[in-house]
Amino acid sequence: MQRIITLTTDFAADSHYVAQMKASILSINADAVIVDVTHGIAPQNIAQAALVAAEVCPRFPAASIHVIVVDPGVGTARRIVLARIGGHDYVAPDNGLLSFLKRRLDLEMLHEIREPRFWRPEVSATFHGRDIMAPVAAHLSLGVAPDRFGPPAAALAELDWPTPTIGRRQIRGQIVLVDYFGNLISNISADDLRRGLPPGEPFDVACAGHATRGPCRTYGDRADGELVALVGSSGMLEVAVVCGSAAERLKAVAGEDVLLTW
Amino acid sequence: MQRIITLTTDFAADSHYVAQMKASILSINADAVIVDVTHGIAPQNIAQAALVAAEVCPRFPAASIHVIVVDPGVGTARRIVLARIGGHDYVAPDNGLLSFLKRRLDLEMLHEIREPRFWRPEVSATFHGRDIMAPVAAHLSLGVAPDRFGPPAAALAELDWPTPTIGRRQIRGQIVLVDYFGNLISNISADDLRRGLPPGEPFDVACAGHATRGPCRTYGDRADGELVALVGSSGMLEVAVVCGSAAERLKAVAGEDVLLTW
Amino acid sequence: MQRIITLTTDFAADSHYVAQMKASILSINADAVIVDVTHGIAPQNIAQAALVAAEVCPRFPAASIHVIVVDPGVGTARRIVLARIGGHDYVAPDNGLLSFLKRRLDLEMLHEIREPRFWRPEVSATFHGRDIMAPVAAHLSLGVAPDRFGPPAAALAELDWPTPTIGRRQIRGQIVLVDYFGNLISNISADDLRRGLPPGEPFDVACAGHATRGPCRTYGDRADGELVALVGSSGMLEVAVVCGSAAERLKAVAGEDVLLTW
Repeated sequence: MQRIITLTTDFAADSHYVAQMKASILSINADAVIVDVTHGIAPQNIAQAALVAAEVCPRFPAASIHVIVVDPGVGTARRIVLARIGGHDYVAPDNGLLSFLKRRLDLEMLHEIREPRFWRPEVSATFHGRDIMAPVAAHLSLGVAPDRFGPPAAALAELDWPTPTIGRRQIRGQIVLVDYFGNLISNISADDLRRGLPPGEPFDVACAGHATRGPCRTYGDRADGELVALVGSSGMLEVAVVCGSAAERLKAVAGEDVLLTW
Repeated sequence: MQRIITLTTDFAADSHYVAQMKASILSINADAVIVDVTHGIAPQNIAQAALVAAEVCPRFPAASIHVIVVDPGVGTARRIVLARIGGHDYVAPDNGLLSFLKRRLDLEMLHEIREPRFWRPEVSATFHGRDIMAPVAAHLSLGVAPDRFGPPAAALAELDWPTPTIGRRQIRGQIVLVDYFGNLISNISADDLRRGLPPGEPFDVACAGHATRGPCRTYGDRADGELVALVGSSGMLEVAVVCGSAAERLKAVAGEDVLLTW
Repeated sequence: MQRIITLTTDFAADSHYVAQMKASILSINADAVIVDVTHGIAPQNIAQAALVAAEVCPRFPAASIHVIVVDPGVGTARRIVLARIGGHDYVAPDNGLLSFLKRRLDLEMLHEIREPRFWRPEVSATFHGRDIMAPVAAHLSLGVAPDRFGPPAAALAELDWPTPTIGRRQIRGQIVLVDYFGNLISNISADDLRRGLPPGEPFDVACAGHATRGPCRTYGDRADGELVALVGSSGMLEVAVVCGSAAERLKAVAGEDVLLTW
């Protein structure tokens, strides 16, 4: 049975660059089953791709192979990795793309991709998606063992986000991502909350001139239209409107300050 | 041999929601063959999707399975159905999406989808395309008998369109849809014409300040550029320009009055 | 093993016209493997499609079948051809779409498509992609011999471009295409250069008020940001900026004059 190969990129829908990646894959494994996740990631928006990948990729059958190409560092020294997370394989530049996946699921194996015998014979300086990542995914789908692509690596890169400031009675962070539903995702992780807050302590959240009280366990706990703060499926504190758009309500974009006090 | 599964939605091209539907299908039938019809239906435009489905779906091989998700009623009491029409299977909310298909071809079987064992274990309130319809299509493609998905249903919902008024010497209706070619499709059906008009009687059609004489049997009967009124492949009276766009010529949009007199 | 069938059109991404072509193919070969190259060719832009096809199609596995539908002449006397170029088969209207492919690779076989038994039973006047080209590709993928589709043809049509004027000490041409990277591709071919220029002679290139000296062998020979003139992979003289966009730098569009002097 074929392992499914999915593609997530910022190449724009219907780009022939996507077709070139598929050509690379099919030239190695003519029976490959390829599914597009999306190519509509905003250009070079690693955080958005990381969130979409964490939402969508694990829904595919176990042992699927996911190629994620949002790669502003292409041609520089950034690594390309093969990571097994939650029973799926991910091939991606190691620039934070796998951050949300790693927070939610187990990182079971990590290899740096270094072995050129599994790449296209000519590797361009600008299109490693086609020349390295797609071929590696294709060889992987044919049963090549992960450790043949390169040496084990120690840790995945984190998203390059501002670190929240944890004080005695407050945590100061910022919105780093607005998701499809208008939820405002902050750089304050569940870990930060555990480290800063006394256990079980409620807190006030201020963002863009609006306030709410947290934590809210799930959206279902509150009425439609209510502003809430909760740790969402991203593993990060989110400011959200139940059945609505917090981005719209608060007129907030990425970069907005978030202040927790208790 | 695999039965083909097609997808038609209003999720927008390249949406990762489409990918989530594909993940649902492939998790049940890893060998499923999935083809996108379009995801560019205008949001919640049931009539447009109904017309596209009737134009495109029957062109696929016999016994294909078509999932159509334009579902403004998701989360309400609207039914989801499995309908066999003209030798193909359709999985869709019962909100009028199958109206044009039913007018053109035989409705051979109709079941309400009610049996949760064929759904995803967790069904969200907002995404039945992924959680119910895609899994049902996948099980159907594996050979599950239609009657196992739920009880027989009596009739398909019609499009929720204004009813034309049939008078002694006139029929008053309105334009309900503008198709890709700029043809103006009215809510006056071939049945309405049979009921209102004396057999064989010609009639005058007025719409948006323009007039023509009907009926025209086929586009081929008239010269390029001529304004015509005919019962089109939708089964409804259409105002059209031969090899041109009536929408452009008449500056007409959905909602425009159409008056037939004789 | 299935021969891959790729599709390149100007129908716009996510168009249900593409789905209709796929339905035609799958109705003949239910196991066909279909890959979209792009449907984002600018409407009726034969030159753009010709360039994309030459860049992308040969990257697919040997013996793939490529259907290219940019067909402003549909319904007129223009031929439809089946061409074997560089070990791949191309099905396209003979309007210049295969020009760049033919320049780079060997034309091994050429047949005019004339035999209706391999078409859809009803052929529309406006959609030969669905009614003729897709069915021919499907039959080809099933092993029908190329010569059964129609008689051998002598030569492929060239792109209908202005001919450059070759003088004693100059060649005057124009920009005919701006590619994705902003390279300005002229109508001056490598052949024109051979015919006009003394062997090895350097030349000055003027375009849109800017000047550079040619020829440049490859981009790698020059510094980033430098304006260069070279015969690119299209086989035509291009004005380009190393790692940048000449279209942006020169504010140039198709139609701009290019003057070579020596």
